[in-house]
Amino acid sequence: MNADLPLYQQVADRIAQLIHDRVYEPGERLPSIRDVHADFSVSINTAREAFRVLEDRGVVEARSQSGHYVRTGPLVCDDDGMEFPVITGSAPLSRTADRLTRRVLTDSMRRGWINLATAEPPADLLPGRRLAELTARALRRDPHRAVAYELPPGPELLRAEIAKRVARGGVNAAVDDILVTAGCLEAVFVSLLTVCRAGDSVLIESPGFYLFHQLLDRLGLKAVEVPSRPGTGVDPDDVRTALDAGPIRAALLTANFSNPTGGTIPEDRKREIGRILAQHGVFLIEDDIYGEMAWDMPRPASLAAFADPARTVLCSSFSKSVSPGYRIGWVTGGADLVERAIHTKLVTSAAVSTPAAVGISEFLAGGGYDRWIRSARRHYRSTVPRLREAIAESFPAGTRSTRPAGGMVIWVVMPAGVDSVEAYERVRREGVAFAPGPVFSLHGAFANCLRINATDWSSEIDTAVRRIGAVASDLARESVATVIPGGIGSGTSG
Amino acid sequence: MNADLPLYQQVADRIAQLIHDRVYEPGERLPSIRDVHADFSVSINTAREAFRVLEDRGVVEARSQSGHYVRTGPLVCDDDGMEFPVITGSAPLSRTADRLTRRVLTDSMRRGWINLATAEPPADLLPGRRLAELTARALRRDPHRAVAYELPPGPELLRAEIAKRVARGGVNAAVDDILVTAGCLEAVFVSLLTVCRAGDSVLIESPGFYLFHQLLDRLGLKAVEVPSRPGTGVDPDDVRTALDAGPIRAALLTANFSNPTGGTIPEDRKREIGRILAQHGVFLIEDDIYGEMAWDMPRPASLAAFADPARTVLCSSFSKSVSPGYRIGWVTGGADLVERAIHTKLVTSAAVSTPAAVGISEFLAGGGYDRWIRSARRHYRSTVPRLREAIAESFPAGTRSTRPAGGMVIWVVMPAGVDSVEAYERVRREGVAFAPGPVFSLHGAFANCLRINATDWSSEIDTAVRRIGAVASDLARESVATVIPGGIGSGTSG
Repeated sequence: MNADLPLYQQVADRIAQLIHDRVYEPGERLPSIRDVHADFSVSINTAREAFRVLEDRGVVEARSQSGHYVRTGPLVCDDDGMEFPVITGSAPLSRTADRLTRRVLTDSMRRGWINLATAEPPADLLPGRRLAELTARALRRDPHRAVAYELPPGPELLRAEIAKRVARGGVNAAVDDILVTAGCLEAVFVSLLTVCRAGDSVLIESPGFYLFHQLLDRLGLKAVEVPSRPGTGVDPDDVRTALDAGPIRAALLTANFSNPTGGTIPEDRKREIGRILAQHGVFLIEDDIYGEMAWDMPRPASLAAFADPARTVLCSSFSKSVSPGYRIGWVTGGADLVERAIHTKLVTSAAVSTPAAVGISEFLAGGGYDRWIRSARRHYRSTVPRLREAIAESFPAGTRSTRPAGGMVIWVVMPAGVDSVEAYERVRREGVAFAPGPVFSLHGAFANCLRINATDWSSEIDTAVRRIGAVASDLARESVATVIPGGIGSGTSG
Repeated sequence: MNADLPLYQQVADRIAQLIHDRVYEPGERLPSIRDVHADFSVSINTAREAFRVLEDRGVVEARSQSGHYVRTGPLVCDDDGMEFPVITGSAPLSRTADRLTRRVLTDSMRRGWINLATAEPPADLLPGRRLAELTARALRRDPHRAVAYELPPGPELLRAEIAKRVARGGVNAAVDDILVTAGCLEAVFVSLLTVCRAGDSVLIESPGFYLFHQLLDRLGLKAVEVPSRPGTGVDPDDVRTALDAGPIRAALLTANFSNPTGGTIPEDRKREIGRILAQHGVFLIEDDIYGEMAWDMPRPASLAAFADPARTVLCSSFSKSVSPGYRIGWVTGGADLVERAIHTKLVTSAAVSTPAAVGISEFLAGGGYDRWIRSARRHYRSTVPRLREAIAESFPAGTRSTRPAGGMVIWVVMPAGVDSVEAYERVRREGVAFAPGPVFSLHGAFANCLRINATDWSSEIDTAVRRIGAVASDLARESVATVIPGGIGSGTSG
């Protein structure tokens, strides 16, 4: 509980905590405004305001004449009342942000470093042995097939299995309307190249995934940023405003457990965004890679389920659940669009790698998938809170971090003035990498924010997180010192 | 011997045949102009002219004060004196050519068809079983590695093996300056996206590989065509003229056994093209996928060996020699360029597929590669002449076909007026696909040409080629009939 916050937010945080701790279960009725007024010794207005905040965060829903209920959908990421500046609009990728991103990417690949910067699942969480076994068996059974092209759209058996997974997000994809790609990133890239021409504008989230910035920049596409919040992701009103402001060809959105904030757009807002895009004739390219990584079931619906199929492609992969290294993902959507995407895949890389395609096919057909998804969910559900604890105990006072409900990334907002890039420069000397806030912005915004990937927990990782926290705390003291002459660290007084 | 040709060309053809039949070996001195004058009973001028033709075709080289010698380099493709119209210049991909290419690509993937349209090696020519065995072993040995990202530039062991192969083309690539890609097509795509921005112009060959047309079009790049001849490929003078005519960002060239004509640029001309590109500050993207498919050793040098390394990338793959399906290729070149290419690969598809990368690594390290390359060369060296024979016996009189010295494609030039697209439409009804001439042109030129892929020989394939020939012969008779009223096939007279 942060006493600096307005009273209604403190009350909202307390209720959110109770929901998080399962004192109130999903679907359960919450105490009335009157009860809260009495129990928390706050005014009726404050209680009402607290519920409004919880509704905004997507944690609670109001039912007319009946009061407030814990949302029955999956829990959305709780933003813990965090505030951070969101600068949006259309802009080229800034030199600073570009350079920083490349530096972080390079660091994240260094051997022996503790990599909290990229979202690769730990190898022992993935079905490596079973996948190797099934791939080996498939290769030996039909070695001639494995050396031959597996031309787009890819193996039919695999597409049939993908169709089943896509259906869980509420999207009915025909087996013929699925293109197998080399992971989700290639799926997004192929979709962009299919839908857009150089110079077109694409709506993206801010903060948003840095590789999308790099990709748009490489393809000569203009990015238009709309705010993405830790709780409920992108707001339909912001989408409408952006589309009204100028011609936009496509919206590239991560509606479920967005990266880095963990925000998930509630279903009614998904429906509204789908409507707005259709009205404006704007294509939707949905990155739904984290959709299946919801910690609670059922998983949230894909945004694509509410959009005009003729102008929608849904991209995802098995990289977070089965194997990033095999590189198997997909594009699905309207038949015409997928047909064009198949051609794009063909002319940019001919085909997916056959051994990976047959291996993943066997794995899915064998029925092992759901077990691994469940164990991944359990894993992240335990690693994320542990790292949040390390963050809470080591970062400067006033730091807030997201409490995601799916995926494995934590968005950390430090007090204004604490520079995440400077913290990065200091900890990288010790072989630790994380993602400083400015990589999630075209402009290099979010200077006081950072993303920690909770893909795993170990005492080493815990120590690394606390080290980042200690460095950030030093920076917080230094920033105070520069403001208050003679303060701690100025060297002129004790 | 074609009596319709000028006498000097007939003499040149006779000498070329003697060279082809190894009556004169590479490096051997040929009869003098005086000897030819006497032996062939032709004038001194005709004999001199015949040697000029052979020099132009790259079969023979003149040494001052010493006479003519069979080129010591690999034999270049003999164009058999063929003539075909080459329309070049800058143009967008025509709708007709685009639609035709897509139709042919779709047909070439149909099951049960006889596919003479795409250049996929027959599965039993590839080391499928050994590759499956080695991949399976590698996956089982280290299943955790196989599920993890194999981030760019790719496995070091594999890059070290690639460096050895690249050296055979005369290019010294540091292991760190090699990027592993998903095949040669992705290597070219990544290079284009690294070097060019939408709107840039790229020099390409005409006739040239249709997927490059499609790729440039998708990336918003303008294509500028220069002629590519069956004998000696692209002429340095044509390159100079094109570069002088307007700003060109990069040249995308297949200097060895170009597709579809089989032309190989002689070494002195490669050196000159390298110089011209450097003078104009133009990037070279070389597609050297067929370089190792030379039927005679040593293989021809890569054009990249003669170009400014800082502005050169060399692209190739194991798709023609080991496996198209595994999708392993590479980009190499100047350190800065490769570093940028690594970033392009990262942002468009993250990584290559790990099982394929470890499998091909094992295969190369095990030393089986050279044996397979040799058997592939032997194979094509036998299939190509057999299909040329079928072409000679079934196509209309006056048809000429290339006599390649590497690779597996045959470029066929029929008499003017015989429409390869019409022939295509007729044989596709019977489940046969080949590549009609217009797919190799932005403008849909080369109407009387076609490409036959001699990847394999069987009586079925032989019959299919003869069927195309029979249809073409029908068309030749029909075209005569429309010119000569009352002629054969007009139905008005016997």
